Amino acid sequence: MQLKKILPLAALTVALPSLGLAQEAEVVVDATPDAVAALNTEMVFILNSLLFLIGGFLVFFMAAGFCMLETGLVRSKNAAMQATKNVALFSLAGIAYFVVGFNLMYPLGDWVIEGWLGGVAPTVLEPVGVALEDVDDIEYASIGSDFIFQLMFCAATASIVSGAVAERVKLFPFLVFVVILTGIIYPIQASWSWGEGFLDEIGFLDFAGSSIVHGAGAAAALAGALVVGSRYGKYGKDGKINVMPGSNLPLATLGMFILWFGWFGFNGGSQLAMGTIADVADVSRIFANTNLAASGGAVAALILTTILYKKPDLTMVLNGALAGLVSITAEPLTPGLGMAVLIGAVGGLIVVLTVPMLDKLKIDDVVGAIPVHGFAGIWGTLAVVLTNPDAVLSAQLIGIALIFGFMFAASLVVWLILKVVMGVRVSDEDQVTGLDKTDMGMEAYPEFSS
Amino acid sequence: MQLKKILPLAALTVALPSLGLAQEAEVVVDATPDAVAALNTEMVFILNSLLFLIGGFLVFFMAAGFCMLETGLVRSKNAAMQATKNVALFSLAGIAYFVVGFNLMYPLGDWVIEGWLGGVAPTVLEPVGVALEDVDDIEYASIGSDFIFQLMFCAATASIVSGAVAERVKLFPFLVFVVILTGIIYPIQASWSWGEGFLDEIGFLDFAGSSIVHGAGAAAALAGALVVGSRYGKYGKDGKINVMPGSNLPLATLGMFILWFGWFGFNGGSQLAMGTIADVADVSRIFANTNLAASGGAVAALILTTILYKKPDLTMVLNGALAGLVSITAEPLTPGLGMAVLIGAVGGLIVVLTVPMLDKLKIDDVVGAIPVHGFAGIWGTLAVVLTNPDAVLSAQLIGIALIFGFMFAASLVVWLILKVVMGVRVSDEDQVTGLDKTDMGMEAYPEFSS
Amino acid sequence: MQLKKILPLAALTVALPSLGLAQEAEVVVDATPDAVAALNTEMVFILNSLLFLIGGFLVFFMAAGFCMLETGLVRSKNAAMQATKNVALFSLAGIAYFVVGFNLMYPLGDWVIEGWLGGVAPTVLEPVGVALEDVDDIEYASIGSDFIFQLMFCAATASIVSGAVAERVKLFPFLVFVVILTGIIYPIQASWSWGEGFLDEIGFLDFAGSSIVHGAGAAAALAGALVVGSRYGKYGKDGKINVMPGSNLPLATLGMFILWFGWFGFNGGSQLAMGTIADVADVSRIFANTNLAASGGAVAALILTTILYKKPDLTMVLNGALAGLVSITAEPLTPGLGMAVLIGAVGGLIVVLTVPMLDKLKIDDVVGAIPVHGFAGIWGTLAVVLTNPDAVLSAQLIGIALIFGFMFAASLVVWLILKVVMGVRVSDEDQVTGLDKTDMGMEAYPEFSS
Repeated sequence: MQLKKILPLAALTVALPSLGLAQEAEVVVDATPDAVAALNTEMVFILNSLLFLIGGFLVFFMAAGFCMLETGLVRSKNAAMQATKNVALFSLAGIAYFVVGFNLMYPLGDWVIEGWLGGVAPTVLEPVGVALEDVDDIEYASIGSDFIFQLMFCAATASIVSGAVAERVKLFPFLVFVVILTGIIYPIQASWSWGEGFLDEIGFLDFAGSSIVHGAGAAAALAGALVVGSRYGKYGKDGKINVMPGSNLPLATLGMFILWFGWFGFNGGSQLAMGTIADVADVSRIFANTNLAASGGAVAALILTTILYKKPDLTMVLNGALAGLVSITAEPLTPGLGMAVLIGAVGGLIVVLTVPMLDKLKIDDVVGAIPVHGFAGIWGTLAVVLTNPDAVLSAQLIGIALIFGFMFAASLVVWLILKVVMGVRVSDEDQVTGLDKTDMGMEAYPEFSS
Repeated sequence: MQLKKILPLAALTVALPSLGLAQEAEVVVDATPDAVAALNTEMVFILNSLLFLIGGFLVFFMAAGFCMLETGLVRSKNAAMQATKNVALFSLAGIAYFVVGFNLMYPLGDWVIEGWLGGVAPTVLEPVGVALEDVDDIEYASIGSDFIFQLMFCAATASIVSGAVAERVKLFPFLVFVVILTGIIYPIQASWSWGEGFLDEIGFLDFAGSSIVHGAGAAAALAGALVVGSRYGKYGKDGKINVMPGSNLPLATLGMFILWFGWFGFNGGSQLAMGTIADVADVSRIFANTNLAASGGAVAALILTTILYKKPDLTMVLNGALAGLVSITAEPLTPGLGMAVLIGAVGGLIVVLTVPMLDKLKIDDVVGAIPVHGFAGIWGTLAVVLTNPDAVLSAQLIGIALIFGFMFAASLVVWLILKVVMGVRVSDEDQVTGLDKTDMGMEAYPEFSS
Repeated sequence: MQLKKILPLAALTVALPSLGLAQEAEVVVDATPDAVAALNTEMVFILNSLLFLIGGFLVFFMAAGFCMLETGLVRSKNAAMQATKNVALFSLAGIAYFVVGFNLMYPLGDWVIEGWLGGVAPTVLEPVGVALEDVDDIEYASIGSDFIFQLMFCAATASIVSGAVAERVKLFPFLVFVVILTGIIYPIQASWSWGEGFLDEIGFLDFAGSSIVHGAGAAAALAGALVVGSRYGKYGKDGKINVMPGSNLPLATLGMFILWFGWFGFNGGSQLAMGTIADVADVSRIFANTNLAASGGAVAALILTTILYKKPDLTMVLNGALAGLVSITAEPLTPGLGMAVLIGAVGGLIVVLTVPMLDKLKIDDVVGAIPVHGFAGIWGTLAVVLTNPDAVLSAQLIGIALIFGFMFAASLVVWLILKVVMGVRVSDEDQVTGLDKTDMGMEAYPEFSS
């Protein structure tokens, strides 16, 4: 307990009687607030780190949410493969982010190219039983808690991609892409804002990553969907769009709920602090706004699909809720509750309206990842200006353009190289059989499928 | 609070100046205990709010638990509809509770009719980065954390209803009912106890809502089940009761586990405070008692079904665990661990014995929501007198009668109006086909169902 | 700030003026740091208890993880039974641990046989609203929080067993075994290390239970698998090993993710303290190492199965991640991140290499519990010496031998007695039909199974 060092007064009581009294009192005056301040410092550090740890396990669980959502939305013949991809991508993201991503993203002065390209070094945590003076940033939180929290954001980008390119991308090329995305592409981009890079300096605001995380994942997904191409049979030669319904909608619903659950950590943890009254009240605001934006998105999608198609659509409701969550992510703090509902609702409407658009463009996005994370992400990033007086529309537009542009271009290059070097697409024949059998020799539901 | 012993100095400031000596001593005397007290105040506020935030995300996840439980217990032809209802009801509950419910429930002096009908106004949170002097109640917690926690309880009542009326209620009339239930009916009733209304004044005790939440949901569910009627084919003309087994029992089991998980937040968070040694030790007691009551309920149901029917029954074991949880919810703090097991076990027995009773009365409760949340809820509310010396049986009985009576009557009126205005029941033909196809044009498991 | 009201020193102000001033100053000097120290003591107690409560609900959820993993990996005709076993075992474990296990495990001086056999008494928690002076250990945490946390570890051992003996063990004999395992066998063994028994004294180190929990469960599972025998048809007379694929791999994947999620609490909570900067930074290290070890295990299993069998195998990837988690559990604190990846990766390799070995020995372990929790557990316990300078290889070897030896021997005796008294194995005919129908009269998926 480092307090021992800074509570020096017990011994003083022996010395005091022989001293002049005013001097004693002075010592007390100096020492005592120090003891309180030291305890306060300690508590703030603990509570900030705790926020990251709680946020960390909540956002970790989003990996399960993405996996269930995607596995439920693919056909059963590709479900085991989709689950494998999700477990493997999360595992590889962790290693890639540790080896290079974290320091690339948080150079904090140690840039390779100032403001644009972070530092290169594996993550090193504080030593075991760290002493106060060895703490990296005593006003912030432990490195380990920060690392685990940020890692989960990085992995989320890869989870977004896996949904879009499901049912036809080859496993190992996909995983190579994941390593490059999570180790290099995402961290570079994220450093521009969260590593105190140039986007941060021009005033671009994206609280928890509507663009930095969700939009980034969607841009990488779009590049992937274009290079890998659509699923065999999805778009008929006559222009007909074949519906390929998800095989397990209750599982997809579970995935959505898990994502919603994790989003409390995603947005709440992004307050980055919980050690003061103001911070914990802000985290509380964020929880409430996050929840109501999801509500708004789900309800809007439910109503709009019922109006447009006469019947509600569960997958649209799920994606509407997720779009509401993405929409509030750029600014979950400043809106009032009513505005949070509205911001989320617009996100839900965007998804219902843009999902068919992608199909018309013959861009095959199996789970609707590009509308949910990309289009709603753009909306959310723009919506910051509605409630945050510090936001400037031009900075938001520049940020969106650069983030989406860079993420798309860099991903496209990687996907194209992978296409040439390894091939990225499962053959049409194997797609008909299903990737579980052809590429894994197993079935997700060996006793159920007709 | 042990601080009483060791923060002695404020009064000294009056005495010291007369000693001539210590202008500085005055500073010490004023500043020091104030600094400690201020830090303590801050920490208590943060820890209380944190308890609500943790409780909030845990109880949020119960929405997923209800959804999986109910989706697993309906037939596969209605599973997508059941999932849709659960996502939509939770979303609408959030909006309704924000717009009117929260302040109706917590008028705290601002009553429309003193002690009976709360205030009417949308929820407004503390401002961003709230200053100490602008905090609503510095001895309690942030409004946002309180709102998110209480919202989850409100939504739970609607989740209980959706299980009972599954497989034949129309989506949109059901959702209208949800809005009225969560925006108006439940908040009015809950204000009587938790809003410091008249039930609180007569000494009715219901710690986390065996009656206020679970019984209330069950009463609304009973009204719904009566007005909507039983599922087509459930009760034959010859008096035969047709078993309609759930389509996905592993999913239902997952739902039960998620509910148990969330219940730590439900009961633990209802301590409403975690900033003192006594409070955190009480939350710990609550965790332990909650867990053991669920254990007792599950084991009792397992044993009794095996005795009665020679074979154990998984759905009864699941409902037994849930009944154990409901039973301990009215008083999870004062029982010892052994008593917690017993209270939960009685809940489990009640469910096994009353589920067939409802069938004999031709009340079709698809998931057993009325026995689990209603009958076990009554038992739990009565059982408070066993361990809490402050409880009075008469007050418990009055509370139960008024809560169930009001919730049932108000819900019945709404259901009857909805029946006339919109119709609440899906036609028999459509029930045979299944609501997923007829009302949504989709299937939950398009590749599995025979 | 209500503390202002309760500063109680009216008495002192009367007394002080008559005293010498040095004495006053002494009062100030003494009292002030005391106030800070008291607040610090309070906060440490709260934060430690909170760590256990968070750890408690996270590790609780592992019960759901085990249930989903095992229910997904059995054939659908035994899925409802597997779910029933998991709910019942967790419920019974709670009761058994309360009645006798907890105090048997934590005698802390109150041994029946010093260092070898703990005390016998049901768990009693601190009283409601406990006063500071009645707290059991003010430097540690509330009894209730400790109890709930440790209970979850105890229950995990039983969950491990249920996976290994799935699809042919009789329900009630299995549950009797669970009661003895969780009430007596595991607590006695765990007391040797965590109850400050003789293994603790010789310097055996197992931070969160690679051997004490996971190895212990695996040893009990091995005894069970040997006594119960293999599933009917698993090993042909011609030496052929029949593959019996799991019926619901997405559900098994969910189970793995839930286990990974819960493991943050399992390992993080085992720091046992979060009230200082050093402790919260250590918990953070543990979170990061735990996550990366799981990553290492999953990736290693993915690569090795692809090398060995040309195709990746989802169940091996799942078990690889779990083996990575088990491997880091004995020492999640001292390794650096790179070492954590390696320790986990070796665990993943061990699983891929030893699963076929068990089949060659005709030991039928349905979910791979013995390789995952046993062999990876041994590896993890040995690997402590790689990074923890306090670890001694001989002590680790002695600990492993005694833990596995005792757990296996004691379990074997119980299983053999149960075999004679109750019979432990479902008949071959009933196995062919499936335990759900024969022993429960129900089906897990009545509409899906072919």
